[in-house]
Amino acid sequence: MLGTILYGKGDVRCEEVPEPKILRPTDAVIRLSASCICGSDLWPYRGLNDVTQPMAMGHEYCGVVEEVGSAVTSVRPGQFVVGSFCISDNTCPHCRRGFQSSCQQREFMTGAQAPMARVPLADGTLVATPAMPPDDLIPSLLAVSDVLGTGWYAADAARVQEGSTVAVVGDGAVGLMGVLAAKQMGAGRIIAMSRHKTRQDLALEFGATDIVSERGDAGVERIKALTDGVGADSVLECVGTKESMTQAIRSARPGAMIGYVGVPHGVDLDGQTLFFSQTGMLGGPAPVRRFLPDLIDLVLTRKINPGKVFDLTLPLADVAEGYRAMDERRAIKTMLRV
Amino acid sequence: MLGTILYGKGDVRCEEVPEPKILRPTDAVIRLSASCICGSDLWPYRGLNDVTQPMAMGHEYCGVVEEVGSAVTSVRPGQFVVGSFCISDNTCPHCRRGFQSSCQQREFMTGAQAPMARVPLADGTLVATPAMPPDDLIPSLLAVSDVLGTGWYAADAARVQEGSTVAVVGDGAVGLMGVLAAKQMGAGRIIAMSRHKTRQDLALEFGATDIVSERGDAGVERIKALTDGVGADSVLECVGTKESMTQAIRSARPGAMIGYVGVPHGVDLDGQTLFFSQTGMLGGPAPVRRFLPDLIDLVLTRKINPGKVFDLTLPLADVAEGYRAMDERRAIKTMLRV
Repeated sequence: MLGTILYGKGDVRCEEVPEPKILRPTDAVIRLSASCICGSDLWPYRGLNDVTQPMAMGHEYCGVVEEVGSAVTSVRPGQFVVGSFCISDNTCPHCRRGFQSSCQQREFMTGAQAPMARVPLADGTLVATPAMPPDDLIPSLLAVSDVLGTGWYAADAARVQEGSTVAVVGDGAVGLMGVLAAKQMGAGRIIAMSRHKTRQDLALEFGATDIVSERGDAGVERIKALTDGVGADSVLECVGTKESMTQAIRSARPGAMIGYVGVPHGVDLDGQTLFFSQTGMLGGPAPVRRFLPDLIDLVLTRKINPGKVFDLTLPLADVAEGYRAMDERRAIKTMLRV
Repeated sequence: MLGTILYGKGDVRCEEVPEPKILRPTDAVIRLSASCICGSDLWPYRGLNDVTQPMAMGHEYCGVVEEVGSAVTSVRPGQFVVGSFCISDNTCPHCRRGFQSSCQQREFMTGAQAPMARVPLADGTLVATPAMPPDDLIPSLLAVSDVLGTGWYAADAARVQEGSTVAVVGDGAVGLMGVLAAKQMGAGRIIAMSRHKTRQDLALEFGATDIVSERGDAGVERIKALTDGVGADSVLECVGTKESMTQAIRSARPGAMIGYVGVPHGVDLDGQTLFFSQTGMLGGPAPVRRFLPDLIDLVLTRKINPGKVFDLTLPLADVAEGYRAMDERRAIKTMLRV
């Protein structure tokens, strides 16, 4: 079959790869209904993470179970499933406390930019839908797997509540999903920081009440002006750079929580600055498994439409163009027909 | 009157100072029932904070109102009051959200290692007791002003709950008060990290269930061993050094909160390490004002006895010996008879 391999900076290829097989009794093999490219795939693509050996790319997925290992009991062939990008057993102490992304058996999904994929720890990782979902919901169900789950976790970690004032730093796909999540959680005001018209429009559609296009000092000033000088109750940091983290901290009121989900690159936090800003922080890879049942339900009942975040769809063969389009910010997020 | 002035590293003196006066209509002047030395006073005393000019020391206080400015309405001469080391108006947006230590008009109390002190923003800072408290409760009421309020905030920020497993890093007075706070909040297990017998004993008396005397890797291992390999649900970081913060992060389970109240000195947090540890953090100067009414009540009804943290009492004239005793860890916390 075809699959996606990253060989080095800027060098991603669609090429023939072996079909996945059950390797352990707890595995499942699924046939993907669609796949996509993640903002985090751009870190190694841009050379910001080392690529020491060819990497099988892709960790977002939904589709139909093809085969399961002998120990798998909760899903069976023919079922439609959505899984988290973090592989988890969903039974260890960290999983039981809702932090499946720190599962004691955690692995990260790979190889899902392909028509089929092996999912380890299938019982703890996959959630089956009650019935085969209609085709038009596939993009949204795919989004649940990572990008929505991650935006949702950012809002959860930032403790968004009914009536909260929320600032979202980052207008990538995760930031936009953070807006959607904050809206669902009842935020009273959602300030999206974005300089790009198409992303601003999507943010507004997902529930943003205000757009701030400024950054740095000017961005902080605008947020302060919008909040009577107070700052936001909750800030979602959805980028992972020093600039975005600084923006997040400075946009928060004392006592606010920052949910940070962009993998930090070059982010160093000065303890004393953080102390006196009195902002709380909780981040990490999103425990999407915790949210899967609820998010799948919100999609199936058509209460949310996160699939709108995909503004480019390409056949798998054109995956390299998908990476380029996201790298050059021509696309927010690329879906791949597999 | 006598007062306490720090002139530089290791040079603290009790000497004649002017009596405090009402300077603004929102001030009160109080006659202290007792004063004390704070762990944070040791930072400049040890030369770890610059002392660019003589500093009037002391920020913990309780006592009787002597005089109030013309705008003060909530306390009156003759009342016994306890105040926070953070001066606050208790009406600004940050105060209303319970973060009085980031009040838009915040000042830090000074000059309270003396028989009398001026308290700015008296209405927002002081809380009067219903009646004159008995003498034996003075140490505990004094503790409320900072050391207990700070330990309490650490536990609150770390979200200690009924049944939580709590680790307390630091066996100074604040750490010991953190143990007391965690106990009051219903923690099921309280692990105090301490290498000193007298502090261990006090920790046990305040509610610790386990003592860990190891530090570093060995300390982390012991905490993991005590928690089935999981780590603590809540960690109270009550020191403020790189070592103690690292200890706190490594002792926490994924998803845990660290309440950190030691002013960070030389603490740099690597974003990616914090991200993948998935530990939450909230710190800062404690909003003691938020807790004052409840803590005063707990003391007056004799449900808690935080005053036990004072293991040395000296006359104000011997304040220099009080600093030395704490610096050399001969005393946990020194109370001053003023």
